[in-house]
Formats: sequence, C-alpha cells, structure tokens
Amino acid sequence: MSVASFPTPDRAQAARTVLLAKKRLGLRWEKIAEAVGKSTEWTTSALLGQQTLTQEQAESAGSVLDLDADVVEALTLPPQRGADAVDTSDPLVYRLTEMVQVYGGTISELVREEFGDGIVSAIDFELDLQRVEDPKGDRCVITLNGKFLPYRVF
Amino acid sequence: MSVASFPTPDRAQAARTVLLAKKRLGLRWEKIAEAVGKSTEWTTSALLGQQTLTQEQAESAGSVLDLDADVVEALTLPPQRGADAVDTSDPLVYRLTEMVQVYGGTISELVREEFGDGIVSAIDFELDLQRVEDPKGDRCVITLNGKFLPYRVF
Amino acid sequence: MSVASFPTPDRAQAARTVLLAKKRLGLRWEKIAEAVGKSTEWTTSALLGQQTLTQEQAESAGSVLDLDADVVEALTLPPQRGADAVDTSDPLVYRLTEMVQVYGGTISELVREEFGDGIVSAIDFELDLQRVEDPKGDRCVITLNGKFLPYRVF
Amino acid sequence: MSVASFPTPDRAQAARTVLLAKKRLGLRWEKIAEAVGKSTEWTTSALLGQQTLTQEQAESAGSVLDLDADVVEALTLPPQRGADAVDTSDPLVYRLTEMVQVYGGTISELVREEFGDGIVSAIDFELDLQRVEDPKGDRCVITLNGKFLPYRVF
Amino acid sequence: MSVASFPTPDRAQAARTVLLAKKRLGLRWEKIAEAVGKSTEWTTSALLGQQTLTQEQAESAGSVLDLDADVVEALTLPPQRGADAVDTSDPLVYRLTEMVQVYGGTISELVREEFGDGIVSAIDFELDLQRVEDPKGDRCVITLNGKFLPYRVF
Amino acid sequence: MSVASFPTPDRAQAARTVLLAKKRLGLRWEKIAEAVGKSTEWTTSALLGQQTLTQEQAESAGSVLDLDADVVEALTLPPQRGADAVDTSDPLVYRLTEMVQVYGGTISELVREEFGDGIVSAIDFELDLQRVEDPKGDRCVITLNGKFLPYRVF
Amino acid sequence: MSVASFPTPDRAQAARTVLLAKKRLGLRWEKIAEAVGKSTEWTTSALLGQQTLTQEQAESAGSVLDLDADVVEALTLPPQRGADAVDTSDPLVYRLTEMVQVYGGTISELVREEFGDGIVSAIDFELDLQRVEDPKGDRCVITLNGKFLPYRVF
Amino acid sequence: MSVASFPTPDRAQAARTVLLAKKRLGLRWEKIAEAVGKSTEWTTSALLGQQTLTQEQAESAGSVLDLDADVVEALTLPPQRGADAVDTSDPLVYRLTEMVQVYGGTISELVREEFGDGIVSAIDFELDLQRVEDPKGDRCVITLNGKFLPYRVF
Amino acid sequence: MSVASFPTPDRAQAARTVLLAKKRLGLRWEKIAEAVGKSTEWTTSALLGQQTLTQEQAESAGSVLDLDADVVEALTLPPQRGADAVDTSDPLVYRLTEMVQVYGGTISELVREEFGDGIVSAIDFELDLQRVEDPKGDRCVITLNGKFLPYRVF
Amino acid sequence: MSVASFPTPDRAQAARTVLLAKKRLGLRWEKIAEAVGKSTEWTTSALLGQQTLTQEQAESAGSVLDLDADVVEALTLPPQRGADAVDTSDPLVYRLTEMVQVYGGTISELVREEFGDGIVSAIDFELDLQRVEDPKGDRCVITLNGKFLPYRVF
Repeated sequence: MSVASFPTPDRAQAARTVLLAKKRLGLRWEKIAEAVGKSTEWTTSALLGQQTLTQEQAESAGSVLDLDADVVEALTLPPQRGADAVDTSDPLVYRLTEMVQVYGGTISELVREEFGDGIVSAIDFELDLQRVEDPKGDRCVITLNGKFLPYRVF
Repeated sequence: MSVASFPTPDRAQAARTVLLAKKRLGLRWEKIAEAVGKSTEWTTSALLGQQTLTQEQAESAGSVLDLDADVVEALTLPPQRGADAVDTSDPLVYRLTEMVQVYGGTISELVREEFGDGIVSAIDFELDLQRVEDPKGDRCVITLNGKFLPYRVF
Repeated sequence: MSVASFPTPDRAQAARTVLLAKKRLGLRWEKIAEAVGKSTEWTTSALLGQQTLTQEQAESAGSVLDLDADVVEALTLPPQRGADAVDTSDPLVYRLTEMVQVYGGTISELVREEFGDGIVSAIDFELDLQRVEDPKGDRCVITLNGKFLPYRVF
Repeated sequence: MSVASFPTPDRAQAARTVLLAKKRLGLRWEKIAEAVGKSTEWTTSALLGQQTLTQEQAESAGSVLDLDADVVEALTLPPQRGADAVDTSDPLVYRLTEMVQVYGGTISELVREEFGDGIVSAIDFELDLQRVEDPKGDRCVITLNGKFLPYRVF
Repeated sequence: MSVASFPTPDRAQAARTVLLAKKRLGLRWEKIAEAVGKSTEWTTSALLGQQTLTQEQAESAGSVLDLDADVVEALTLPPQRGADAVDTSDPLVYRLTEMVQVYGGTISELVREEFGDGIVSAIDFELDLQRVEDPKGDRCVITLNGKFLPYRVF
Repeated sequence: MSVASFPTPDRAQAARTVLLAKKRLGLRWEKIAEAVGKSTEWTTSALLGQQTLTQEQAESAGSVLDLDADVVEALTLPPQRGADAVDTSDPLVYRLTEMVQVYGGTISELVREEFGDGIVSAIDFELDLQRVEDPKGDRCVITLNGKFLPYRVF
Repeated sequence: MSVASFPTPDRAQAARTVLLAKKRLGLRWEKIAEAVGKSTEWTTSALLGQQTLTQEQAESAGSVLDLDADVVEALTLPPQRGADAVDTSDPLVYRLTEMVQVYGGTISELVREEFGDGIVSAIDFELDLQRVEDPKGDRCVITLNGKFLPYRVF
Repeated sequence: MSVASFPTPDRAQAARTVLLAKKRLGLRWEKIAEAVGKSTEWTTSALLGQQTLTQEQAESAGSVLDLDADVVEALTLPPQRGADAVDTSDPLVYRLTEMVQVYGGTISELVREEFGDGIVSAIDFELDLQRVEDPKGDRCVITLNGKFLPYRVF
Repeated sequence: MSVASFPTPDRAQAARTVLLAKKRLGLRWEKIAEAVGKSTEWTTSALLGQQTLTQEQAESAGSVLDLDADVVEALTLPPQRGADAVDTSDPLVYRLTEMVQVYGGTISELVREEFGDGIVSAIDFELDLQRVEDPKGDRCVITLNGKFLPYRVF
Repeated sequence: MSVASFPTPDRAQAARTVLLAKKRLGLRWEKIAEAVGKSTEWTTSALLGQQTLTQEQAESAGSVLDLDADVVEALTLPPQRGADAVDTSDPLVYRLTEMVQVYGGTISELVREEFGDGIVSAIDFELDLQRVEDPKGDRCVITLNGKFLPYRVF
C-alpha cells in the first residue's frame, strides 16, 4: 500500500466529474435528487462537495450518473465548506454577498427585535430556491431557513 | 453660509439617532413602517441608512419618532450601501456570509439550470423576514426575492 | 431632542469607564460578578461589551462600580462582538489564535469522529478559566464548552 | 543520488495517507493513540502533521495503520504548524476563531487579574476534548491547558 | 468512465488554444466574430472565456479557427467571470481601474441626478471599442452601455 | 500665523459643501458646468475634488453656488485622486469595477490587435455620460475616451 | 463620576508626553533607566508603552521627567503590544522585519538542531543593544535573548 | 537545447535535497560549515537558499553532502530572499516577528539616540546564534550585528 | 505641565502649514532650498516630513516661510517615512510604483551582473529631478543615485 | 491539433531558458543587446518578459543565445507586466519600493510645481542604469525618464 496507490479523487474532483456526467446524460438536479432521496437543493450542494453523503446516497447518485467506484467513494469523503467552496467575485455569487452587505444590518436589527440576542443558524439550516413567473421578468426566490439560537447566559 | 454652518448629521448619525429614539419611545419597526407606508424590512433598511427616503417618508418617520428637523433632512441624503454598511465579522451577519460561502455554488448551479446565464438582481430585490414557530426551536425564515437578469448577447 | 443631545457613551466607552472604576475601587471581577448574579467569565465579557445586560444587571454593576446613569444605560445597548472586539495581534490573544491554527485540524477531526458532521456552537457556549497550581509553574486552564450542532439534511 | 530520487512524501501527504488508511481499516483515533502510547489528542495532532514523532512512535503508528516505510519516514519530518495547517474559513474551525474574537478580551482581562502580566503558553500546552451528554443536546468540552509565562523584567 | 477519462480542457485552456490558433492563422477578431454571428467585442469576450457560447456558436468558432472537438466542447462550458478573469495589475487594465477610481464618484453623482436611485447594469450591458483617428495621436473610445436599474421600494 | 490659524477646508470638505449648496439651491450639474465653462462631467469631477480648478473657475463655481471665500480657496487645492476618491464597494461603483473584471481581458486583446503594444490613457482622457431612452428601460451610456500611448522602445 | 470625568491619557499619549519631556530636558534613556532601576532597553520599552510599570517605577520616571500625576497614572495602565505598537513600514523597523524574512528559516533550522522541537520565547526575553566601533563604520549589535521552550508531548 | 532539456532544480529544490542528505548522513550544520569554510549561520542560510555560493563553496558542500552535480549547480543560482523564504506564521518564526512588533519602537528610539538618523543594515549584517545554559531552562541568544548607515543629506 | 499643554503640531501638520505658507507667499521650492542650504529635492522631502532638519535648518525654513515657533520646533521632530508618507494609489505616485513593477526585475538582473550580490541603498541615496525640453512633449528625468552595498559573507 | 499539441513555453519559461543559456554561454546583457539592436536595459526587460519583441528581434536573441525555435516563438508572445513580474519583497527590489514610499510625495510636489497637474509616463519611458565609481563605494545611478502628460481638461 504505497503512497502512489492512493490516487483517489477528492471532493472537488468528484464534483467536476458529476457536472460532466450530468451534462453528458442531460439530467436535471431534480432527477438526481429523486435518486438520492433528498431535496434538489441539498443534493446539489452535496454533489458539489459541501455536504456529507452516506455510502447509500453516494451509490444512488453514482448509479443515476453512471459514476466509477472511486468517484462514488470520493463522494463520501468529508465535505469542503471553506472559502474555496465558492468564488465570491463571480457576478452571480457577488450579488448574494451584496445583499448581505446592504441588508445585513437590517436583518440583525429585525432578528434582535423579534427573537432577542442570538444568531440564525447556518447549520440547522435549509435552502430553498424557486422560480416565480412575473410578466415584468421572472423572479428567483431564495429562502434561507435557519433555527434561531439564543446566546447562552452563564 | 460658512463651512462651519453645515453641521447637519449624515445618514449614519441619523441612524444612531433613530435607534435611540425608537428605544426610548418603545416602538417596534412594524409601527414605524406603518407610518412610513412601506414594509417593515424596507423601512428598517431605509432608516438605518441603506435606502432613499422621500421628503414625505422622512417626515412621517420623523413624526412618529419625534425627530428634529435636521435629522429628518439627513434621512433624505443619498444612502450608504458600501462595505461600511455592515460589520461582516459580527456573529449574526457572519452566519449570512457563511451561508453564501457554503451554498453559493449550489445557488449558481440551480439558477443556471433553471434560468440560463445571468444573475439574480440585488437591486430589483425584496427582503422578507418571518418568525416561524417550531417546537424544536423557532426558526427565522429570510426570503431573498430578486428578478432574474439574463446576460445580454450583443 | 437634537442630535447634539445624544452624547450617551457606547459600549466601548462604557467598558473603559468600567475598567477605570474597577481599578480605582480595587475590585476583582469575581466580586462584580456576584453583584450581577452571573459567572465571573460572563460578567467580565458583558461589562467589556460582548454580552447583553438586562436593565437590572446593568444597574447592579453600576451600583457596585459606582457608575453614572448614562454609563449604566450604555451597558444595555446591543453588544459589540465583531473583529474590533479584540486585537488578535496582542501577544496573549495571539497565543489563542495560534492554538486554533495548530490544533484546529485535530479538533475538527475528533469532533467529526465522535459527533458526526456538524459544529461546536460559539453561541450556546460557556467559558471557564481556572488557575491550576503547578510546581513547574502555574497553569491557566481555559474550558470551551459548546453544544454540538449537527448539519441539517433536508 | 539525483533529485529525482527523493520522491518521499511530506507531512501533508503522509497525513492524507493516514486518514485513508484509518478509514479503510475502520480504526478510531483512540486505538491509534494506544499504539503510539500518547493521548488521543496529541496523537491525532501528530499524525495530521503538527507534532514531531520519534522514529519509534512513527513505526508504532505505521504498524497499526499498515503504512509503507516511506510514509513512516515522512512522519518523522519536521511538523507543519503554519497558517496552512488549518482552513480557518471552515465552519467548524471558524467557530473556534469566533470564540477567540468574542471572548479574547475577557480571557486577557482575567489572566492579567489572576496571574499578572504575561501569556498562556501555546507550546507548554495540552489539549483535551470530551463529549458530555446533555438531554438538550450533547456538548463538546474543549480544554486548553497552558502554562502561564510572566513577561521578564530586565 | 473513470476520473482519468475526463481530461477535457477548461475555459482558460480553451482561450489559450484560441489565441494560439488565431495567431498562427493570422486572423482578426472581426473575422472570427463574423463566423460566430455576433459583435467583435462579445465574440472576443466569449472566446476568452467570459461569455456562454451555444453549441452552434462554438462550432462556428471552431471551424474558422480549426479547433479540435474537445476545445469546441470546452467553449460551451460555463463562463469564468471572477477575479481571475483579468490581472488588474497589468498596466493597460490598471488604467481602466484608475478611471473608475478617479471618475467613479462623478458617474455615481450624475447617474443619481439623471436617473434617480439605482445602478447601471453590468449584465444587461454592451461593450463597444473604436479607434478614432486624431492628428495628436489616435484615441481609443470605449463605450459602456448598460440598462439603468432602479432600486425597488417595497 | 499660528497653526490654529489654518482651519481652511480641504477638497473633501469643499465637496461636501458643494453638494449641500447644490441641493439647497436646487441646481443641476449642467447649470454649474455652464458657469464654470467646462463640460458637465469634468465640472462634476472637479467640484467633487478630482480635478484642478483655476482661481477663475473656482470663483465662477463659488458664485453660482453662493460659496464662502474659504471654500472657493479650497477648490483650488491639489486634487484628491487616490483610492479614497471613491468607495468601490458601493453597488453603483462596483458595477463599473465588475465591467473591468469581466471585460478587461477583452479590451486588452482588442487594443493590442488594433493599436499594438501600449495603453489607453487615463490622463489624456475624457468622460461622457448620456441617457438613452429605450422602451425596455432607459440606458446609461458611459464613454471612456483616452489617447492610445505606445510603449517606447529604446 | 461622569464619563466626561475620565480624560486620563492612555499609554500612547503618555509615551508622546515622555518623548517631549525627554527632549526638552535633554535627557538620555540611560539616565531615565537609572532612575527607574532597570535596564535602558526595558525602561525605554516600558515608557514607550510596551511594558507594565509598577506605581513606584512610574513615579520614579515621572520624577526624573517632571511628568504630571495623570501621566504617571497612565504609565501604570496595561501595556500596548499589538500591531499598532510599531510601524513595520518605517525603514529602520523594516530592516528588522527583513532580517526575520531572510534569516528566519536559518534560525528555525539551527534551533531545531540544537534544542529540538520548540520555540525561543518572546516573553521570557531580554533585549540588549550596543554600539560597536568599527573603522569601516560603527555597528549596532542587537541581542535577542529568549528562553527555549520545548513543545509539550502529552 | 529544448525547453524540456532544462530540468535543473531551483534553489528551493536544492535546499530540500540538502536537508534530506544531511538527515540521512547524520551531519550537523557545523560540520558542513567547516567544509564550506564559513560560519555555521551563513552556511545554513546559503544552503537553505538565501545566500550566493561560489562554485567552489557549492562543490565543497556537495562533497560533504554527497550531492549530484545538478544540485551543486543549482546552489550557485541567485538566492531567494523574498517573502516566500520563510513562513512567518510558523510558531518559532512568529516569535521573532513578535519581538520586532513589541521591541521595534524601542530599537528605533535607541538607535536614533545613539547613532542619529539612519538604519541598521540587513545587508552588511552578521547573524550569530548560541545556546546558553541556564538552570531555569537553557536560553537561545540570537545576535543581529549590522552596520549603521546614516541617511545622506544632499 | 499637563498633557493638555503639549499641543505642538507633528510633522504632518507642519508639512500642511509649510504648503499653505508657500502657496500664500508664492515661493518656489528652489528658493526655500537656498535658504536651508541644501538641494531642492532634499529640502522638499525634509519640509514634507521625510528628513531630519537641524535646529538651524528649521529656523532658516521658518524665516523664509514666516512660520510660528511651534511649527519650527515640529520640523525638528523625527521624520515620518512609513507607508503613510505617500498615497501609492495617487495616479502620479502609482506610475512610479508601476515602473518598479515592470522594470524591477531588469534592475535586479543588471545590478547583479555589474556589481554582484547586494542592493542599491535607499539610505545612502540622492534624488534628482529635472525637466528636459522635448518638442514631442517635455520629459521629467528622475535620477535615483544609491550606493551599492554588497551582502556580507561571514 | 489537440490541446496537448500546444506545449509551447510562455514568457516566464522563455525568460528562465534565456537566463540559463546566458549563464552557460558566459554572455553579458550588453552583448545580447547589441545583437538585438536595442539598449541593454530594454533588451534585458524584453528577454525577461516585460516587452514585446518583433520576430526579427526574437530571432537575433535566439541566435546569440542558441535558443530553440519554440523559445524564440515564445519571446514574441504578449509581455507579462502585472504584479507577478517582480517580487517586491526581494531586498533589492524592496529598496526601490521604499524610495517611492519615502520620496514619492516629494516627486509629486516637484512635478506639480514644475509641470502643472499631470503624471510622468511609465509608458513613454526609458530606463538607464550606470555604475559610477566612488572611493567611498561605487554607486548605482538609475535614471527614470518619462514624458510628462498633463491631465486633459474637457
């Protein structure tokens, strides 16, 4: 078992393979999510490398995407959620960052008024993304649903 | 009309005055928003300095908050929406930044699949914040509603 | 009620006043904490500006420290927990940062093995600091006690 | 002895090999630590690359993990403890950084009061991590135990 | 379909190939743009990796530039528009950055006066570049044409 | 002539005074530019502090804006064109920065093809800003007109 | 005891006062150090704000420098040792930084060879600075004397 | 003589080879320095890549370390003294940086008093490192010996 | 001698006073330099705060510029040569930075070839600036004259 | 013509090859410059990758340096003049940066007085480097010769 014998892909490489396989097979994320048995948003996040997949979930994804065994194994590695997980200078992602910049103070103020001193969890958290038709141009509605956690007073 | 004769407050000073007045009068944002005639989220954002208030809106806010004339005038100055608008290292705001870090790639991927090449506007945009009761701990549901803008091909 | 009529101190100014009063009165944090009715660690953190004090707690602190009314009011303002809350380049604080740098990977690995995928909360959190006598030089034992929060799978 | 003849792995590569071997063999860190003869925390830190292993300790780890000779040799190389040792933007590690940000001033203040002018060593230091069961959710208790070092007056 | 079977070039590699092919064939961007059926500016931007090409557009470019099939496929991958898309320290690009630095405040002020509160879109946007002869030295006229987007009041 | 006798405003303070005077008098930049005898764009840039005004130009501006003598004198001080001249994180200005990010490589490539090796001057430069009516939403057309400067070969 | 009643100087202000008093009185650091009863290097560091002075030491310094009582009190405040303690871009200080850059690897290597795994303390530390005459130009010999601290193996 | 025919190692690769050879041969730097004919400190610095070695010095080092000819040649390449020469976040090196931070102002002040306006050279410079036995723990004494250079007045 | 009794200006304030006095008196730097008895370049640098003036030089400058005694005293304070000494984002200064960026490698290479291993001193250094008439546009010739300092081999 | 068929070196690789060839052939830059037909400074800059070489110039350099055809072709690629062109933390280059830091304000002031509002071009620019013998140590005289460009008033 030499070092050279561990050429298994990491999560980022597995994600690139998933994207290529998805494109070549013409699949939608919704379809892959059905195979995995979770929401479209969570499944996308997991296959891009930001969530932990069980062996069974990885195999279901591997089956619908026709992935090799080593890619399936790579999908069960620990997730990558650091700053490298996204390029915040990409225009689409930057708009999200700008929303936090412009409305972050407002959200803080309203959370403090309504819930008291604490934070909205990014861990006990769900993401939902919907297209809403609008005659002036369709809208993208992104819902951030996090549990409120009060600061502990000890 | 010397330089020394322009000691009018800026938007940040006006915001601090608003917060103190709100605290001393025991008002909620919802109540102030009713006076201004806009949503609670927009009104909070405007009085914190990130939106443009008309003379009439500023006077309505001034009336319910019992603000001086110079503070009311300051509320009609151009908004401040740059990086100074929020401290991203504050734990509550940081959680929002982390959501963008962890789920930004997923949102990009799903927007591209559903809408094509473009961005979700942070300008033609609405914010909504709701408390949702939950026996395991109440949740804060933040809705980001932006118009999809396709990249122009020329 | 003009702008000039709001010269109330902020949390940072209140903290400086607390430190001077404590020094001049020769008090220990333990004593102040008894007055506030919370632990020494939380009380110190609160009076330095990083926790929310109730009106009653602020008044108890004000009483033992002989603070003016406006300083007591300032102690009930929202806490300041951003990057300005500490100078990480101070040698004592830097040692804590270095502990995270050198042992952060180890803590991640052991938490993942023991609890699964999630984080240790910095919100539902308690700090404890003890002096432990040791013939080779006394030791400072800092205990970080946080609730484990699993990533939500949705 | 050409340059090309030194393809020995470095500490980071050795750590990746250790993690893969540990996963494939289904071992826990506690078990590996028993083989090395040190605490679970130190052993994890050492095999991840942040501590110096003796030849004997490296061979014990190699034996229980079934590592190749060159990986065992790599484990005896100087440790890597710089900023690359951990990704501070990973959510779990970030929470530790935030604890230092929010409570660093408090720790400084209490150390100064109790010990005088000096620092808590990150070198003459022990880490301990325990799971504490709690009906409201189990807790992770991380103990940082460092020797107090007074500033020398000369 | 192993990981090793996905050595397809990415957009940056495709761009390098396009530049070499263009040089070797002695083509001008105008000529390539005619083949693609879009403006010279958009086509250049697309082949450098910052726009999305349809399969048909990529094949037209591939035909006039004599590109391999895998390069043509790479041209249909998602565009790369983050900070890596340009080196802002290159003297030519830096001059553009300096124009924004020196005249950005002026543009903000004039847009606010003429259009009201909003932004000039970088998405619903067209670029035009012209050489204008001038006896004192020819000039380069760069036209930035973006749709005005008013901030939504909700 | 003590230090305390030099309380003359600097360019930034003069700019704030100009903006307040302009607002109170209900003037447009075009009108002020007519008084100064230069284009609207240059005059705006000069009064915001980024260009050098002659004594005569400063007095013309002072006359139409009813400025005090010390503000007029301040307008003749050296301009401020450094990074402080604009907040690049303001959403409107950021869009300009993003245009440079996304299209900077394209501009470089087209300038090199058309003019050869050199830069487009930000000094021998003119700015023009026009509103163009459009049934789908009016557009803002920003023209950057700079002299091409070839690299000297020596 | 209002907030306005705490206009005591901080350590940085006390240092500026010390420097002015030293200049006006024409004293050398050696002379001040004699009064304080410590080395020249430590005394300079202490009066510049980086060490803790006892009440007695502060009074001795105050006596020889003819300082006001509030400056003497300020000298007993906690020291300031963070990044603001020095401007590393000052040419003289930068040379020290460059020495660490160029010779830091060498020092690490030699310490590891001679002492084993550990660090040279910056806390249990003495500084000495001497002028050494040299016909080719006098030399400044700076001695850094720190206790070796071995990493604890636990 | 194609590009592919220049696979000579650079200074960093040569340094890694030197460290491995030194470890395998069980040599001390003092011994290698004797072969090179320079001090231990300079020789270590040179073989780690921060000094220029003559052909003869490189061959002497190659002989005692049993290096290949291409490594010997690499040792005569220009030195690498930039920021990459050391990882300032390594705990041992960081302590040196902290000494500059805490004592840099003191050194500036004492140099100015003793020598006048100028700097201590990092070029006409010698490093010396000694172990000093001490019953309370051995000490590492690092001597920085640089020529004073006065600012030229012209 | 209270803290409030030290309101002497610092070097930056003295520089602003010098610039205003120079403007009001309509003097050129050459004339001021004659009074000081040094070159125009050095005198400008000294009065802007980057060189040390003797009492006599400061008084000569004070006499020709009609400065108050406290400004003259401030001119004898230690110079300010750190990063705050100049705004490198100012377009004129940036061009100098760009020259270093583009030609720094060339200068390094030519110095190494001609002088050997060392640096060009920025301390034993003279600056000269001349206008050279040219029919195609006058040129500014900046001469940097520094002593070569060889690296010491020890 | 697959992607794999474009292994041509880039400008940085070509520069490394040039340096090795120059060393092995024992040539001086002056000699290479004669072959290219330009100044020593420009030729060095061009072969290091910061200027554009014509096909003829590249072939002349290739002939005197005995370079392969693909290296000659690489020399005609667009130059690399961004921040990667030089390591500003290298001691020799840093001294140039420090000269700009310390004397940049002086140069700005003198250029403004002599030429008016504008910049010294880094494009219409010549570099000259001379060794000047001096009994106190030879000096390196670097001449920066740039065309003055006045700001356009429009």
